[in-house]
Amino acid sequence: MPRQIQPAVVGATGYAGFELARLLLHHPRAKKPVLFTREGESGTSAQLDDIYPHISGNGGHPLQAFNWDALRSLGVDVLFLATPHEVSREWAPEALRRGVQVVDLSGAWRIAAPEHRAVYGFHDADPSAADQITAQAIYGIPELHRDRLKQATLVANAGCYATSIILALAPLVRAGLLDLSWGVVCDSKSGVSGAGKQPTQKTHFVEVAENLSAYSVFNHRHTGEMLEQLGLTEDQMVFTPHLLPIPRGILSTIYARLKTEMQPQEVESRLREFYSGSPWVRIFPQGKLPQIQYSLHTNFCDIGFTLAADRRRLVMVSCLDNLIKGAAGQAVQNMNLMFGFNEEEGLR
Amino acid sequence: MPRQIQPAVVGATGYAGFELARLLLHHPRAKKPVLFTREGESGTSAQLDDIYPHISGNGGHPLQAFNWDALRSLGVDVLFLATPHEVSREWAPEALRRGVQVVDLSGAWRIAAPEHRAVYGFHDADPSAADQITAQAIYGIPELHRDRLKQATLVANAGCYATSIILALAPLVRAGLLDLSWGVVCDSKSGVSGAGKQPTQKTHFVEVAENLSAYSVFNHRHTGEMLEQLGLTEDQMVFTPHLLPIPRGILSTIYARLKTEMQPQEVESRLREFYSGSPWVRIFPQGKLPQIQYSLHTNFCDIGFTLAADRRRLVMVSCLDNLIKGAAGQAVQNMNLMFGFNEEEGLR
Amino acid sequence: MPRQIQPAVVGATGYAGFELARLLLHHPRAKKPVLFTREGESGTSAQLDDIYPHISGNGGHPLQAFNWDALRSLGVDVLFLATPHEVSREWAPEALRRGVQVVDLSGAWRIAAPEHRAVYGFHDADPSAADQITAQAIYGIPELHRDRLKQATLVANAGCYATSIILALAPLVRAGLLDLSWGVVCDSKSGVSGAGKQPTQKTHFVEVAENLSAYSVFNHRHTGEMLEQLGLTEDQMVFTPHLLPIPRGILSTIYARLKTEMQPQEVESRLREFYSGSPWVRIFPQGKLPQIQYSLHTNFCDIGFTLAADRRRLVMVSCLDNLIKGAAGQAVQNMNLMFGFNEEEGLR
Amino acid sequence: MPRQIQPAVVGATGYAGFELARLLLHHPRAKKPVLFTREGESGTSAQLDDIYPHISGNGGHPLQAFNWDALRSLGVDVLFLATPHEVSREWAPEALRRGVQVVDLSGAWRIAAPEHRAVYGFHDADPSAADQITAQAIYGIPELHRDRLKQATLVANAGCYATSIILALAPLVRAGLLDLSWGVVCDSKSGVSGAGKQPTQKTHFVEVAENLSAYSVFNHRHTGEMLEQLGLTEDQMVFTPHLLPIPRGILSTIYARLKTEMQPQEVESRLREFYSGSPWVRIFPQGKLPQIQYSLHTNFCDIGFTLAADRRRLVMVSCLDNLIKGAAGQAVQNMNLMFGFNEEEGLR
Repeated sequence: MPRQIQPAVVGATGYAGFELARLLLHHPRAKKPVLFTREGESGTSAQLDDIYPHISGNGGHPLQAFNWDALRSLGVDVLFLATPHEVSREWAPEALRRGVQVVDLSGAWRIAAPEHRAVYGFHDADPSAADQITAQAIYGIPELHRDRLKQATLVANAGCYATSIILALAPLVRAGLLDLSWGVVCDSKSGVSGAGKQPTQKTHFVEVAENLSAYSVFNHRHTGEMLEQLGLTEDQMVFTPHLLPIPRGILSTIYARLKTEMQPQEVESRLREFYSGSPWVRIFPQGKLPQIQYSLHTNFCDIGFTLAADRRRLVMVSCLDNLIKGAAGQAVQNMNLMFGFNEEEGLR
Repeated sequence: MPRQIQPAVVGATGYAGFELARLLLHHPRAKKPVLFTREGESGTSAQLDDIYPHISGNGGHPLQAFNWDALRSLGVDVLFLATPHEVSREWAPEALRRGVQVVDLSGAWRIAAPEHRAVYGFHDADPSAADQITAQAIYGIPELHRDRLKQATLVANAGCYATSIILALAPLVRAGLLDLSWGVVCDSKSGVSGAGKQPTQKTHFVEVAENLSAYSVFNHRHTGEMLEQLGLTEDQMVFTPHLLPIPRGILSTIYARLKTEMQPQEVESRLREFYSGSPWVRIFPQGKLPQIQYSLHTNFCDIGFTLAADRRRLVMVSCLDNLIKGAAGQAVQNMNLMFGFNEEEGLR
Repeated sequence: MPRQIQPAVVGATGYAGFELARLLLHHPRAKKPVLFTREGESGTSAQLDDIYPHISGNGGHPLQAFNWDALRSLGVDVLFLATPHEVSREWAPEALRRGVQVVDLSGAWRIAAPEHRAVYGFHDADPSAADQITAQAIYGIPELHRDRLKQATLVANAGCYATSIILALAPLVRAGLLDLSWGVVCDSKSGVSGAGKQPTQKTHFVEVAENLSAYSVFNHRHTGEMLEQLGLTEDQMVFTPHLLPIPRGILSTIYARLKTEMQPQEVESRLREFYSGSPWVRIFPQGKLPQIQYSLHTNFCDIGFTLAADRRRLVMVSCLDNLIKGAAGQAVQNMNLMFGFNEEEGLR
Repeated sequence: MPRQIQPAVVGATGYAGFELARLLLHHPRAKKPVLFTREGESGTSAQLDDIYPHISGNGGHPLQAFNWDALRSLGVDVLFLATPHEVSREWAPEALRRGVQVVDLSGAWRIAAPEHRAVYGFHDADPSAADQITAQAIYGIPELHRDRLKQATLVANAGCYATSIILALAPLVRAGLLDLSWGVVCDSKSGVSGAGKQPTQKTHFVEVAENLSAYSVFNHRHTGEMLEQLGLTEDQMVFTPHLLPIPRGILSTIYARLKTEMQPQEVESRLREFYSGSPWVRIFPQGKLPQIQYSLHTNFCDIGFTLAADRRRLVMVSCLDNLIKGAAGQAVQNMNLMFGFNEEEGLR
């Protein structure tokens, strides 16, 4: 039996937090995770299976009120924060101070440039301390930051939309193959679990079913992390998210122009090479496009494309499960790297 | 141009209230309805089309705060209450006192026997006055109480589940054809709009989609009105409602046993005769069963059945749109009777 | 009672044909439509309500085998072809020869330039005759060709995707406000009824539900009509259709760049002016975007937009019901113009 | 490394067959399964991942044309037939003759009494041989026939509806606690994958979405196996299946009457005792009812109940995933028993 680490999760009653708890429960290198609740979060349930009977049947999954002392006494090695970004903004520094590594699933630590994170409206008690921690945080897409994640103490797990778009564009943008004067257009569609478990008018079944709607055009929070990771300026990207009438899954349709004409095989090769050591990205052959169903309930990001007859206009399609590769699965993948485990461990 | 009446609606921002407003807007015998909001109900919207852009495009639909004086000054002939039952329990008597006829869409006045309405937990300031008003209220299923509805001042519009079940069973129960020692089993499935517009965990898209759940077994509020209208005792009926992952529509599957063997044609004839003068009930020929789609967005209740080879065991299927024949459409049908209009007016 | 015309429909058993039949049945200026079936089309059903019990309940709707003599003997004024394009390509000329006006819902006569219609693969017995008829056909979007439609003998009813995109872009393209060197990107999402009633693997419930997929990238049939109506070259447009897990409705998200900076109010004004006499287009105020639900079961096309902070990058959202404004409703609107009726007749 | 057996699957391109292939691919006691196709079944695909890209990404999954010699040369220990019942009726005897054990997922061998299987319309070349094989087949619900399955050479894997209903009723029926003069009423609702992958009008997205329909009332094929397994006569059961607008999952609502009054705790205890050694059945505490979501993508059958105030009228709710516990998962569970593996192996 190899060494096992002790994970803890704050926010396991939310959709992403629950997926995370479920993954960690079956992870061969992790002990049974400690499931913390924040004050007022989960009502009076004492067990995660009271809220999600899905996982009942093989022993209980007790929830316990979070406190910092428990973190130490329980020997927690890594703290997953599936919490609102304001909470993560406060808790992550405290955990680091106490010597506990952190994987934060919120947007609290993803963005370096102040103007890009202005949309979050952070009110830091100590801004310069916050800047130091921001500098220390590694953006949590393993396919782009594998080596740095191995050394990370704080991982800023990437956003769901951002993961689908960055993974599709990074190989071509980094190789300088795109005509950035034209820019990129990202039209994303997401299942409703991306909006969280809190019931609102927007997530009411009757408002979502038989419907499709665009929202947060030109002001979605994920824009900043995409610009930074891809090295684009604001006017080089348009991003429109839409709310799909399905529980989970994201499909991003991405429009770009190649700088010079390329053959489809060249494009495909570029993508395959970029992800040659990455088990969780699947490149589809030219003209065969991924669909949301293919990657549901998996940690895969699926990427395909079609090139126009002019060999310049490019349409890419990128799919993933917003709760797995877009959140909990990627968090586990990041944890695997942080602790020197195989990247696929606990995710098959 | 024939005489037009002036209707008013309280609660037009809810799902049933909105359907009602929409129907009244196109009713040839009704003036444009006054749309009242109760305190705290609809936020700050001044127009119904702000909440439901569906109906924008042909002039505005202003909402106004309810008050009793406006009722008189606007010359309201009939007040529709699409309000919680506690509100209807207070407001209907006051409206009647002021000489305004009322169609109440809540459960406030549907049930005569105190033990059957205990589940509502009414706290009447003046119980004997409430009893008098209960006695005055006519249960709002036109197919059963057509003549009395023509004289009604207060209509207790029937519940959605109740309408689907009562219309299916009434012809056979009233003719004494069922073996009531066996009883009836009513298994109903409803779209989510029946649960109202208020967002709750239960109506969150992710909880409803890809799911089916039974609820309120042996204690649903509609049970009492079904027992009273059908003249059954509590132990003669089992009623299980389920929440379907669709926005609207009800299908009730009803199980009964015939007292004596009958041919399918006899059963069909009985049903057809019972509803011969009723334009809003469609009887399907033996073996051809209605589906939810057929009656969506219409005021029809569709009824079909299959008889076992033993000519005794009977399965009936009854479908309707819970917001139309199960609420707003039936309310208009009742209004038509109250004011001497053709029963189909404004509903085609 | 004003003069009534006699319409006939071929293909009323399909989804668009059925909506058309339903609309014509309630059209105040139309007699009860003759419902023709083509050989092998509808099995042995003798009544449209056998296939669509939705419309049963007020008399039957007999289907009859099509033949040219019946067309004359029944006094048909206008023939609606809800047929595959190969069929329309043969039948429309014959109907015109016999003096019957035609509204064709297929793609047979929408496109002038041979290279744009190559994707249809027409095999005309007499190509020059076909060219003459093409020249005679008026493209069926009333908002763009109102005057010519009033004189039309053959209307080529516009495609569903095409209607949603053309109506959004026409006001800005025609006014020369867009930077066409950047082009336009059209990302459309459609409900499944757009794929027709014929069951295929692609329309199997299990393949569509919980899914989203892009298809026909760079080779969808509607591309040609959009280019022609908007006066664009092929490399100025990218169009990607997607299959949504809903029965009906289209939302197109359209990306463009303004030639020069404009204020949102100016853009809104341009749109409103363009459609000032058009009752079936609703312009949303800047920043308020249409959703699919709003126009379902109506003949409206809803158009909204958001302009970036740079006042150049523009995102437009256009919604319609693919079976109504995208097919049957628009066909009736075109018929209204052809026969001098009010454009809204039979569509409220 | 413990001994591994060699499984083969015929029909892996169907929905249940695909789930089976997926389960076997990860089963620790099974070698990579041989995936056979029957003539004309899967077109020209050479790989299962061409049809289901879901499983691509970790090596190919070749399909090969079935032939009896390959069965031997590949050393197949157990043959899974995910085939139409006519095919299974022919192939299972041949496989047994060749010494290969069989798990048949069709209805071919589930039913002993000729009158109960008449609905299948078998035409056996050698009826008495067929009878012998029927006698040899063990009905594939491990919770009821665990010991006999350990010795089985032919398993007749139970039907999906049947599993949900039999598991709920068996504990009470076998203990003689139900009033069988009243009978049982079984109202089941299933996702569309139960209808198979072949596209038909019935499985067209537009026909299923926004809908619910009952079908095969009093003549569904699963009735016979339920009667036999529960020891009921035909007139003691009514079974109505419905088609739900979801891809997968079954919920059965079951109505019965207790012979004598019982406390809810007694009923719960009876159920728990009956399934005490059964890891794949979860009993819910009285009043807490299972929902379809809870058991999706698992091999659990979830059972709950509510007892009326009269302590006699009983409503049970039973849920499972029709493709897992209702087909492929149960097949693997049966295989585990046949080969002496732990019952949970490969199913967590």
